[in-house]
Amino acid sequence: MADPFFTPVSGFDLPRFAGVPTFMRLPHVDFDHPRINDVEIGIIGAPWDGGTTNRPGPRHGPRQLRDYSTMIRAQNGASGIRPFEARNCADMGDVPPNPADLMDSLERMSAFYTRVREAGIKPLTAGGDHLCSLPILRGLAAEPLGMIHFDSHTDLFHSYFDGQMYTHGTPFRRAVEEGLLDPKRVVQIGIRGTMYDAEDRDFAKAEGIRIIPIEEYFKRGIPDVMAEAREIVGAAPTYVSYDIDFVDPSFAPGTGTPEIGGPNSFEAVEVVRQLTGVDIVGADLVEVSPPFDQSGGTAWLGASIMFELLCMMV
Amino acid sequence: MADPFFTPVSGFDLPRFAGVPTFMRLPHVDFDHPRINDVEIGIIGAPWDGGTTNRPGPRHGPRQLRDYSTMIRAQNGASGIRPFEARNCADMGDVPPNPADLMDSLERMSAFYTRVREAGIKPLTAGGDHLCSLPILRGLAAEPLGMIHFDSHTDLFHSYFDGQMYTHGTPFRRAVEEGLLDPKRVVQIGIRGTMYDAEDRDFAKAEGIRIIPIEEYFKRGIPDVMAEAREIVGAAPTYVSYDIDFVDPSFAPGTGTPEIGGPNSFEAVEVVRQLTGVDIVGADLVEVSPPFDQSGGTAWLGASIMFELLCMMV
Amino acid sequence: MADPFFTPVSGFDLPRFAGVPTFMRLPHVDFDHPRINDVEIGIIGAPWDGGTTNRPGPRHGPRQLRDYSTMIRAQNGASGIRPFEARNCADMGDVPPNPADLMDSLERMSAFYTRVREAGIKPLTAGGDHLCSLPILRGLAAEPLGMIHFDSHTDLFHSYFDGQMYTHGTPFRRAVEEGLLDPKRVVQIGIRGTMYDAEDRDFAKAEGIRIIPIEEYFKRGIPDVMAEAREIVGAAPTYVSYDIDFVDPSFAPGTGTPEIGGPNSFEAVEVVRQLTGVDIVGADLVEVSPPFDQSGGTAWLGASIMFELLCMMV
Amino acid sequence: MADPFFTPVSGFDLPRFAGVPTFMRLPHVDFDHPRINDVEIGIIGAPWDGGTTNRPGPRHGPRQLRDYSTMIRAQNGASGIRPFEARNCADMGDVPPNPADLMDSLERMSAFYTRVREAGIKPLTAGGDHLCSLPILRGLAAEPLGMIHFDSHTDLFHSYFDGQMYTHGTPFRRAVEEGLLDPKRVVQIGIRGTMYDAEDRDFAKAEGIRIIPIEEYFKRGIPDVMAEAREIVGAAPTYVSYDIDFVDPSFAPGTGTPEIGGPNSFEAVEVVRQLTGVDIVGADLVEVSPPFDQSGGTAWLGASIMFELLCMMV
Amino acid sequence: MADPFFTPVSGFDLPRFAGVPTFMRLPHVDFDHPRINDVEIGIIGAPWDGGTTNRPGPRHGPRQLRDYSTMIRAQNGASGIRPFEARNCADMGDVPPNPADLMDSLERMSAFYTRVREAGIKPLTAGGDHLCSLPILRGLAAEPLGMIHFDSHTDLFHSYFDGQMYTHGTPFRRAVEEGLLDPKRVVQIGIRGTMYDAEDRDFAKAEGIRIIPIEEYFKRGIPDVMAEAREIVGAAPTYVSYDIDFVDPSFAPGTGTPEIGGPNSFEAVEVVRQLTGVDIVGADLVEVSPPFDQSGGTAWLGASIMFELLCMMV
Amino acid sequence: MADPFFTPVSGFDLPRFAGVPTFMRLPHVDFDHPRINDVEIGIIGAPWDGGTTNRPGPRHGPRQLRDYSTMIRAQNGASGIRPFEARNCADMGDVPPNPADLMDSLERMSAFYTRVREAGIKPLTAGGDHLCSLPILRGLAAEPLGMIHFDSHTDLFHSYFDGQMYTHGTPFRRAVEEGLLDPKRVVQIGIRGTMYDAEDRDFAKAEGIRIIPIEEYFKRGIPDVMAEAREIVGAAPTYVSYDIDFVDPSFAPGTGTPEIGGPNSFEAVEVVRQLTGVDIVGADLVEVSPPFDQSGGTAWLGASIMFELLCMMV
Repeated sequence: MADPFFTPVSGFDLPRFAGVPTFMRLPHVDFDHPRINDVEIGIIGAPWDGGTTNRPGPRHGPRQLRDYSTMIRAQNGASGIRPFEARNCADMGDVPPNPADLMDSLERMSAFYTRVREAGIKPLTAGGDHLCSLPILRGLAAEPLGMIHFDSHTDLFHSYFDGQMYTHGTPFRRAVEEGLLDPKRVVQIGIRGTMYDAEDRDFAKAEGIRIIPIEEYFKRGIPDVMAEAREIVGAAPTYVSYDIDFVDPSFAPGTGTPEIGGPNSFEAVEVVRQLTGVDIVGADLVEVSPPFDQSGGTAWLGASIMFELLCMMV
Repeated sequence: MADPFFTPVSGFDLPRFAGVPTFMRLPHVDFDHPRINDVEIGIIGAPWDGGTTNRPGPRHGPRQLRDYSTMIRAQNGASGIRPFEARNCADMGDVPPNPADLMDSLERMSAFYTRVREAGIKPLTAGGDHLCSLPILRGLAAEPLGMIHFDSHTDLFHSYFDGQMYTHGTPFRRAVEEGLLDPKRVVQIGIRGTMYDAEDRDFAKAEGIRIIPIEEYFKRGIPDVMAEAREIVGAAPTYVSYDIDFVDPSFAPGTGTPEIGGPNSFEAVEVVRQLTGVDIVGADLVEVSPPFDQSGGTAWLGASIMFELLCMMV
Repeated sequence: MADPFFTPVSGFDLPRFAGVPTFMRLPHVDFDHPRINDVEIGIIGAPWDGGTTNRPGPRHGPRQLRDYSTMIRAQNGASGIRPFEARNCADMGDVPPNPADLMDSLERMSAFYTRVREAGIKPLTAGGDHLCSLPILRGLAAEPLGMIHFDSHTDLFHSYFDGQMYTHGTPFRRAVEEGLLDPKRVVQIGIRGTMYDAEDRDFAKAEGIRIIPIEEYFKRGIPDVMAEAREIVGAAPTYVSYDIDFVDPSFAPGTGTPEIGGPNSFEAVEVVRQLTGVDIVGADLVEVSPPFDQSGGTAWLGASIMFELLCMMV
Repeated sequence: MADPFFTPVSGFDLPRFAGVPTFMRLPHVDFDHPRINDVEIGIIGAPWDGGTTNRPGPRHGPRQLRDYSTMIRAQNGASGIRPFEARNCADMGDVPPNPADLMDSLERMSAFYTRVREAGIKPLTAGGDHLCSLPILRGLAAEPLGMIHFDSHTDLFHSYFDGQMYTHGTPFRRAVEEGLLDPKRVVQIGIRGTMYDAEDRDFAKAEGIRIIPIEEYFKRGIPDVMAEAREIVGAAPTYVSYDIDFVDPSFAPGTGTPEIGGPNSFEAVEVVRQLTGVDIVGADLVEVSPPFDQSGGTAWLGASIMFELLCMMV
Repeated sequence: MADPFFTPVSGFDLPRFAGVPTFMRLPHVDFDHPRINDVEIGIIGAPWDGGTTNRPGPRHGPRQLRDYSTMIRAQNGASGIRPFEARNCADMGDVPPNPADLMDSLERMSAFYTRVREAGIKPLTAGGDHLCSLPILRGLAAEPLGMIHFDSHTDLFHSYFDGQMYTHGTPFRRAVEEGLLDPKRVVQIGIRGTMYDAEDRDFAKAEGIRIIPIEEYFKRGIPDVMAEAREIVGAAPTYVSYDIDFVDPSFAPGTGTPEIGGPNSFEAVEVVRQLTGVDIVGADLVEVSPPFDQSGGTAWLGASIMFELLCMMV
Repeated sequence: MADPFFTPVSGFDLPRFAGVPTFMRLPHVDFDHPRINDVEIGIIGAPWDGGTTNRPGPRHGPRQLRDYSTMIRAQNGASGIRPFEARNCADMGDVPPNPADLMDSLERMSAFYTRVREAGIKPLTAGGDHLCSLPILRGLAAEPLGMIHFDSHTDLFHSYFDGQMYTHGTPFRRAVEEGLLDPKRVVQIGIRGTMYDAEDRDFAKAEGIRIIPIEEYFKRGIPDVMAEAREIVGAAPTYVSYDIDFVDPSFAPGTGTPEIGGPNSFEAVEVVRQLTGVDIVGADLVEVSPPFDQSGGTAWLGASIMFELLCMMV
């Protein structure tokens, strides 16, 4: 049983639309808070989208995800897990970015996550664009990590715009090059959409990264695909990175680079439920772009995915 | 063949966007109308959402459902049923609610439905929030009824907010307690989402209510699930209550308490088509909240479901 | 100079879209917080709309107002006032309502505001529908207060729906009857729109409440009208109640009962700036209904008005 | 005092969001209805936009105007006029158009309005695009009429697209040519926006039509402009045609050919209030295009203008 | 390898949101352009919706499809096809319609497509409503063509509105009557929704047109259904007509006559991928109506379908 | 009379929704085009928003401005100016930015505008965020320029986020420091909203930049204010920079940093019409952010302002 301080506000007591919105109605405990040392899992916002090459907006993701996460209740209906009783969870606030300087933002974020790791806190991050995953990995990866990556894109490109090395299309290329990820223990699921060329796939093949395209995913089914994914990452420390554009844009329109023909919302959470046994050292849910879905449907799906990730982390 | 008076206006004669919008372009026949005694099936609006604990709006449901129902044509494309020729159907207008007094609204509604039952009319109701089903059942249930209930929530909770017994999360708890429903003949299909606790499930188990969670629903498939549902309610009088949040929020975003991971729109009508043989004494489609889907997509799905319910009632 | 603890986060340090959104980025200090005794002005959310007779939604007002209020900076550009340096201001969270019980909600709110008054804190409230003003006045009015009321409606009706005494169209009738307001010191500005009948105006006339219709407002101009308003309330304690539907619906579409032909957004704040010298014991900004303006423009205007009210309260 | 049959439903009795939506909650009395002979003013929908050269949608205008008109109450707040007590008013339903045949639609409409005139009913029409005014005039004009025309365009062009004589840019050119309008008694107010060429202005000048551009309108003010307008049409029978794009698009975005820089919503109704003394034989409010403003703000303004027109017709 | 002149702009060089938007970022080459003789496949807009009987808007389809098609990259992710290297593709601009004259528009379009055929260019058209397919067929069909038709409606009706022969519900009735289509080589896939009557189905049966209703489609699966479709059209010249309302409205809300219960977005492109071996002489994607989906999701799906059609045409 | 090649497509010939959308339907003539040497005024898109500190989106501005600018016709209705006959105008396409590198983007832009200046072309730019004005000035300012600047912010700040010198809040501070602007000949009109501190105003005062706050603007009126503005810049070369947030957000919601209480849309163009006699060497309209106004109203206003600027440049 978790410390009562870390119990979220219940919708039976205070309606879900009321109150200052923190992630899942948890207490707001930042590094200056007296209870910071008791936090076991920290939910963190990374409100930055400076690596976006197409439609912007994920900088607004954490706030809308907080808002919609107030509709989350205490217990997972499918598995029965009650994560807030299993671990001390808290909303740790947002990493402070510099919206006008990419390199400075990367440094601010990696410094923050280094501190998170040193505090012994497991982070669950709400992005932000996918380039955020790079500084998070810089902060967390004491050794090369495995990764289960849900996405419609590989994000393994070398560069854009005549030499631009850091965009939301390149984070995992950099992470492999920097030794943050062990490519042999990386699997990318749901890849689809039109391609520039095969440069990213060639890199994956050369490094041993396993790509499961959407056609294979649909053909084999979730249990089979996820069994392979678990096998690839094995028992060693693993990061889970979830780009909301993994899901079909009808279910998640609020994102910058949608690709049609993806999984539905049931599958969106089912793949996470099959992460049992994976040693998750951190996870993120990125690329929720509120300006492209002011109705909040994408954020509600995103918050639901974050809750499932949390249930796998406890 | 139905009375020509009760024939809906055809889109071949008057474009579907034209004319005063009644349900399915039927004549508007309220209790003061000279033809009221010839009505066999009455479509009724219940524009009230006073039992809503989260996001409001279903009070606007009947109007938007009327608007979109003008796109319904004469014949069911799948089954060939032509309901308006099989029975005299009419738009009976709206139950007059009191938006600022919950108990007064419940009384107004139960009085109205008592009168409907006494007039020998089968009601098909467009809600309103799910608490509307309670006064409808009070009006209709001369004896305990069976119920097939499509929803993502059980609506079987005891109370909210420190003792509030009447909300859209409690109607069927009250209905069982009041003897309006025979719990052994109640089945709830599609239940999912995060939970406060298991208090509602415990009540269901104790009373013999059958809950079919979404995971079981997807695993077994519609024919198998609906065969069990028909068996549970048997040949005795049965009510059908359809909460639009049964359907996945991508298909029905306009609702107050969406839960991701639900059925798609084909399944949304397919489950209704499998109600053949059930003795339906009344049905409702509730929780359509236009302010959360001003595009009308939810209302169009809701109107389509209402048409399928109507085809099962004739 | 205010206590540094009460300094809002600056957009120069943390971008305005980042962080847990509190009112104007102030610290969140509720009654359980160790610094509660140092709060001088408390910004409070009243997320309740149970008195709404038409389109609902103001229960969502406080959250969206918090969100948009993060775009407020430290200094009033017109007057130079820096309110956060003049007084210790804090976000005191939300009053806990009961969405399904009107009378219970009124009691919860009056109890909360009694506590606020007893703590010596001046409240600035973000509604909620206009019925919220009644329990606020019950909590604050140790003696009959004066009131400057910006609105398109008088909210002075006797009752609705065959005897319903408490709706958002009746709060000030009740407040006068209960002796919370001194009708001779009440002025209502901006009244317009179609009328049911003149029952509210007759009451106003009989009691001595001054109504300034929009036609008179436009003819005389703001300085003249506001001079009269200041004279009416005089030097004694006064409440300011601001219904966002005072403003034209093009500037504030997100409200339940819009009336066209109102003031623009410059006038919306200019009328507040002319409250100099009024002894304001509390103020509210009500009827912001996010479901009817998901773009947030109404909330941005509402937050701007709240900031102007705050500048008049310090 | 009007016949009680013709009294609109009050929002004090039935909430404004409830019930089958007719114009201003009046009874629906079409030509087949037993009370048709008692109708004095008929509100009619003309759901047709076949003359639209740019963005379509006014075919959906009548339905949305009906919906929003249910927020109209019994009495004009500014003038005190209670139109429903002064005359028997009814919703006469919609003219049946042929969406795929322009000439057939014109004939259907002129036949309908001829019948309206012969029945001694004064029509207030909700369009439809502005070409609808031509068949209305064909039905109503027993003799050449005067016209007060609020618009941002003259609609006096000769033809489009290489010889197309009937579009929403040509109705009044045709009406003058056909002797339906007396050009010496026609005034057009609010004209603005970029121009193709001066061909329409040359025609106006040659025929004696008075054009008051928006710059002159703002400079002289409403009282002066409307005094001239009343003088131009004099005491003889006059038609009032109101294109919603007269109003600035910020107040009325839902229209097909918006021109920035127009009057605000207060002026939008004020110009109508100054029609006192004009012998109005019919009026219309056209070019409300719901697909371009699903929020309904344009329709609410349009319904408010229709109410003001009605008050001038009684 | 295609001529470099016909290479689309890459998102690696110029961000996808930049530049004048042509279809798939191809060069704009109309009949007056010096390179017109080198064009092999022309992508053409048909911005006309004069045959629409319900909700309008497809006249705006080509522009929004151009906009979203700039997110298409060079290579098909599923098949590896690089169409722009296989054939010289170009954006040929729009057919000039007459929005106010149906018959004139049909003539303008058939003349345009005759010219396209005579120039030896294969057209891929972005509609426009479905009546556009008739003049396209008039231009292309030197002999009776086969057709694979994806839709929720048969568009085989005789007439509307008391004798109107040309609407978007009649094009293929006319095409069969005019000998443009060989009914024995026509297959319609995905048919569903409520029906007026069976007049269209009777015509299909009498002529030998094969209709595959949605229930059969879901039951048999795509490979089986498409194998039959390929067999029906055989090796002779075939046209492919794709109405976006084939897809479920949750995935494609921006259309005028949505029918719930359709295929998802993965299936939407999968059916096209199974057209291998068909001799496609032209194709269209029609009924994308931007005013009913200003978010652009429907257009993004439509552009993705157009790319798949293009890959089948090269 | 301009060269016929440079005549825009007329809406009388091709409907305004048809065709590839270029600025004002002008020919697309980039630096590689054979007619580039005949261009006198080039309309250029700057699709970049990397300097944005709050809500992003102006990178999408040029495309939506192009789209809505197709509703512009040939002649200014107020002044009678026909700009396309007075000068050879063309759409020169977009400056290629690097969305992920601020400094690289600044260099790309200044290089582009240097080339524009050297080609003897006067540029009218559609932004983009306000930082775009800095590289434009670097390209254009052969000598220190005067500037008339419409905005709600001064954009004169020193730095953000602990030393960030280049954001959309700093361009004119940099431009003065770099000698691109002569501060004595700079006037800023419409300044308003809450302030961080007075650091920007102090700089203005020290340098001699004239700031006209909104209160003064409303008090003095446009003719008086603009007379002073013309006097300040005098007869020497002057740049005009127009931030759409100068206008009230009700008229221009699609922008990142709205400030309520601004001018309406009539004033938005009237201020431009009073630039007669100013020697304009270039102009821009920036900060139109389509994701925050998908309805396009802001872009339509922006395109109308651009047309007025163009009329002042010929």
